[in-house]
Amino acid sequence: MTMRTPLPGLPERVSIYEVGPRDGLQNEKTIVPPSDKAEFVTRLADAGLRTIETTSFVHPKWVPQLADAEELLDVLPRSPELRYPVLVPNERGLDRALANGVTEVAVFGSATESFARRNLNRSVDESIGMFAPVVERARAQGLWVRAYVSMAFGDPWEGDVPIEQVVSVASRLMELGCSQLSIGDTIGVGTAGHVTALIEAMTAAGIGVDRLAVHFHDTYGQALANTLAALRAGVTVVDASAGGIGGCPYAESATGNLATEDLVWMLNGLGVDTGVDLGKLVETSRWMAGRLGRPSPSRVVQALSPETEQ
Amino acid sequence: MTMRTPLPGLPERVSIYEVGPRDGLQNEKTIVPPSDKAEFVTRLADAGLRTIETTSFVHPKWVPQLADAEELLDVLPRSPELRYPVLVPNERGLDRALANGVTEVAVFGSATESFARRNLNRSVDESIGMFAPVVERARAQGLWVRAYVSMAFGDPWEGDVPIEQVVSVASRLMELGCSQLSIGDTIGVGTAGHVTALIEAMTAAGIGVDRLAVHFHDTYGQALANTLAALRAGVTVVDASAGGIGGCPYAESATGNLATEDLVWMLNGLGVDTGVDLGKLVETSRWMAGRLGRPSPSRVVQALSPETEQ
Repeated sequence: MTMRTPLPGLPERVSIYEVGPRDGLQNEKTIVPPSDKAEFVTRLADAGLRTIETTSFVHPKWVPQLADAEELLDVLPRSPELRYPVLVPNERGLDRALANGVTEVAVFGSATESFARRNLNRSVDESIGMFAPVVERARAQGLWVRAYVSMAFGDPWEGDVPIEQVVSVASRLMELGCSQLSIGDTIGVGTAGHVTALIEAMTAAGIGVDRLAVHFHDTYGQALANTLAALRAGVTVVDASAGGIGGCPYAESATGNLATEDLVWMLNGLGVDTGVDLGKLVETSRWMAGRLGRPSPSRVVQALSPETEQ
Repeated sequence: MTMRTPLPGLPERVSIYEVGPRDGLQNEKTIVPPSDKAEFVTRLADAGLRTIETTSFVHPKWVPQLADAEELLDVLPRSPELRYPVLVPNERGLDRALANGVTEVAVFGSATESFARRNLNRSVDESIGMFAPVVERARAQGLWVRAYVSMAFGDPWEGDVPIEQVVSVASRLMELGCSQLSIGDTIGVGTAGHVTALIEAMTAAGIGVDRLAVHFHDTYGQALANTLAALRAGVTVVDASAGGIGGCPYAESATGNLATEDLVWMLNGLGVDTGVDLGKLVETSRWMAGRLGRPSPSRVVQALSPETEQ
């Protein structure tokens, strides 16, 4: 129940880049079996999501939750409409992706040295050096490549991250040949003015809004307001996690990704088309919350699920 | 930790109208003793909040939580800087307010017949008839009067509430002589375009943005995005509840008012002055969450309180 009232300057349609199966589950402690992951992805697709980042070819030692990447990809429903990007940390990850018929991949960069060291075990320069052959080979094979630039607003160790530093890392990632850049507020500290300024700086540096996506975490409650600012700045691809599952292990909070349901509620109200069936999506997230053994952090899922009330 | 980056068109300063002690506690099941309420208000004032709706002179039968209104008002710290509006449902409530030296009062109207019947036990017409002598007498005594128009976006029984209907009720409330109108999304269903359209309609009907406040509930996660839309439309008074306590008993959710901390985080990031010390505010809300025996629904309070993690 929500009145459709457009806001001037917003796009007619927004593409949701669903990250629940990868970014969401990756940060959940409860290990989900591949059969449940397959059901999760299948139900998300049935709810109308068309781009779903399904897993990561990172070494299982680092992310045990995603150790079943091959097994999962093997059983997912395929359709020309559905895109299943997979995270590849390095060339070995790309090898696995290619061996499994993956056609979209993503590399995960960091805007800060501290996070690059902790997450990638190398400097920003070294990480870009590591990604270069990944992107080059992926492109040569006809794959679509997304780049994430994480810690793009604040960093737990470095504090505020200067906009020029983020744009510099982003430009270098895009120059490798990536098709899309997802700007990540990994710890959720950014606010709407900062979002607008960063997108404008990206555009000024030649990374147009048609190649940008935004990836917000709701750690400080800012994710949806920041998304609204990004949409007003011309962005049309928004990352979100069904049920709001996940959460950055480096942030002191149980809340994580922007919940897809909360995003869809806003976009429905704004009359912006997403192609998503909210009812089916909420049902899917309630089911996954049961599997994870904790209530969904999504406000919409909570509001529409009386039995999970506190 | 958040970079201050202004967004064009926002006000330099926002006045937060703190509703935690009244609207927040009113909807909490755990009865809080008056000494704790007094400490709550005192700590909110110490954190820099300057307008705090402290209680209601409703009949104790309807709201047992606020049965101690006189006792509370008796012990609150006074200062020329501090304003303590009190809700008065009718003339008897106003009598009690006047007897207790209250200088700011608020009446609580409904945009819909269904909610007027359920909450006020009368029609919208009858409720405005009931408020007329309250506002007239309050004004004659030199009191400042606020009017709430609740269910201004959606209503659990009627669904979408037409903008013209809300503006009509609001206009009649303001014509009684009220100084400020708080537009309430009591069940939290509204989205940003609807907010903008409603504010524009209010302005067109002669209720300027300098007399408007917005009152959002975060039931569907929209409160902060809606606040951002309201600020861009020129509103400078925002209702919020410390720690996000409260919640409409008619909405199927444990989440309620916009959390003051989440609002302050956004405004700090936007470089908009509120005069609030976020650290002190978070400490206060953590303390109150302990008294209420449940974690704060505020994302910021959660993020800054590792021990309340799920």
